[in-house]
Amino acid sequence: MHTPQTATTAAPQSPTTFIDEGFNPTPHEFGVGARFTLAVMAENFAEVILDALRQADATGLSVTTGSVSTHVAGAEQDVMRYLAQVITAAGRSGAHVAATVHLSRGCPGGITCDVPAGGAALRSEIPRLTSAGVDCVAEWALYPLADGGPDGGSADHMREIYHAIDHARTTGVTVTPDHFVTRLEGDLAAVLETIAAAWVLVGRSVQHVTTHASLSINSPSAS
Amino acid sequence: MHTPQTATTAAPQSPTTFIDEGFNPTPHEFGVGARFTLAVMAENFAEVILDALRQADATGLSVTTGSVSTHVAGAEQDVMRYLAQVITAAGRSGAHVAATVHLSRGCPGGITCDVPAGGAALRSEIPRLTSAGVDCVAEWALYPLADGGPDGGSADHMREIYHAIDHARTTGVTVTPDHFVTRLEGDLAAVLETIAAAWVLVGRSVQHVTTHASLSINSPSAS
Repeated sequence: MHTPQTATTAAPQSPTTFIDEGFNPTPHEFGVGARFTLAVMAENFAEVILDALRQADATGLSVTTGSVSTHVAGAEQDVMRYLAQVITAAGRSGAHVAATVHLSRGCPGGITCDVPAGGAALRSEIPRLTSAGVDCVAEWALYPLADGGPDGGSADHMREIYHAIDHARTTGVTVTPDHFVTRLEGDLAAVLETIAAAWVLVGRSVQHVTTHASLSINSPSAS
Repeated sequence: MHTPQTATTAAPQSPTTFIDEGFNPTPHEFGVGARFTLAVMAENFAEVILDALRQADATGLSVTTGSVSTHVAGAEQDVMRYLAQVITAAGRSGAHVAATVHLSRGCPGGITCDVPAGGAALRSEIPRLTSAGVDCVAEWALYPLADGGPDGGSADHMREIYHAIDHARTTGVTVTPDHFVTRLEGDLAAVLETIAAAWVLVGRSVQHVTTHASLSINSPSAS
């Protein structure tokens, strides 16, 4: 049931970010970034994780590794390039890898969100990744947090979610609904690109958008 | 910076679920449940994971293990007891364990949500867990998805979020805000209870509430 896929191989491009209200925040000011956790199910897990982090291109990013996850702040294209390189490297070790990916935009803070004024969304381009050559299965959830105002924009964000699902069906990954999540199967880069595309597309009309995915690579129970 | 905590040890109690509109769905009909992934960073990961799943009390639950995660459906008290028992058992192996926990209520479906009619919330009691004797650090995000109607109830759900944060400060865990997440440190049962309490408390006024947490146990970088 798992057909290897060819990822979209369009050249990376710089994100074009702008906002309708004439306010042009940096990705950092808008809270664009990711948290991810790499779990490598082998005795040499620390070596595999540290090697994977070391070889990735962190240009343009602020990267902070903690005991639970690594936080990455920067523009969408840079964040996704980095995530894809780190997770791909861990997957190429051959070990069973579970990666947790959490993308966020529009909220720099913690459990409550001090969003930028006006509820304005930030338009970004869809990140593009080169094929990873590593297959994965992901369980994915997407959260448009359009609850800041009296007219939460539900019509708009549902339009963008349907747009995002339509987009997911064109990226070459296998898309299957399940309880609480959508399952994506294919090349790791195509899967990450699908997740990031939905996050960016919904983010064009909703200020605060997060998305969570659990990725499994080289699972002994997948074959 | 990490002080071991004593978990709340109140006796488990059955959840009392009701809904104001005279509609009384089962936890399953309301989509109450969890997905979790256990990653054990040791060569014998499969044995540790399977042993942890086997020894847990799944009474009242529907449990389905897939290649990425295990889905658990049932009442909040039963779901949390099961999660705590499974993750505690994996932690007691002594291996470095990364656990991803995703709780959801109010939406039985996938990326788009066919919620029960009327947008009504489901009142449940806060699950209670016995102390695990295993410490953990968690990064936690809480999502009230109150975007289904024209008056998304933002005042109500913010009240419940502040109530949930107030509650978190009484459970004995250390609470620290960070980018995109709140860090919780303490006994595994107290951390899970804190996460579940917020989920249930916000769920009293918001129909669809999800929460995600990445837990780290026995991390070599934590000491």
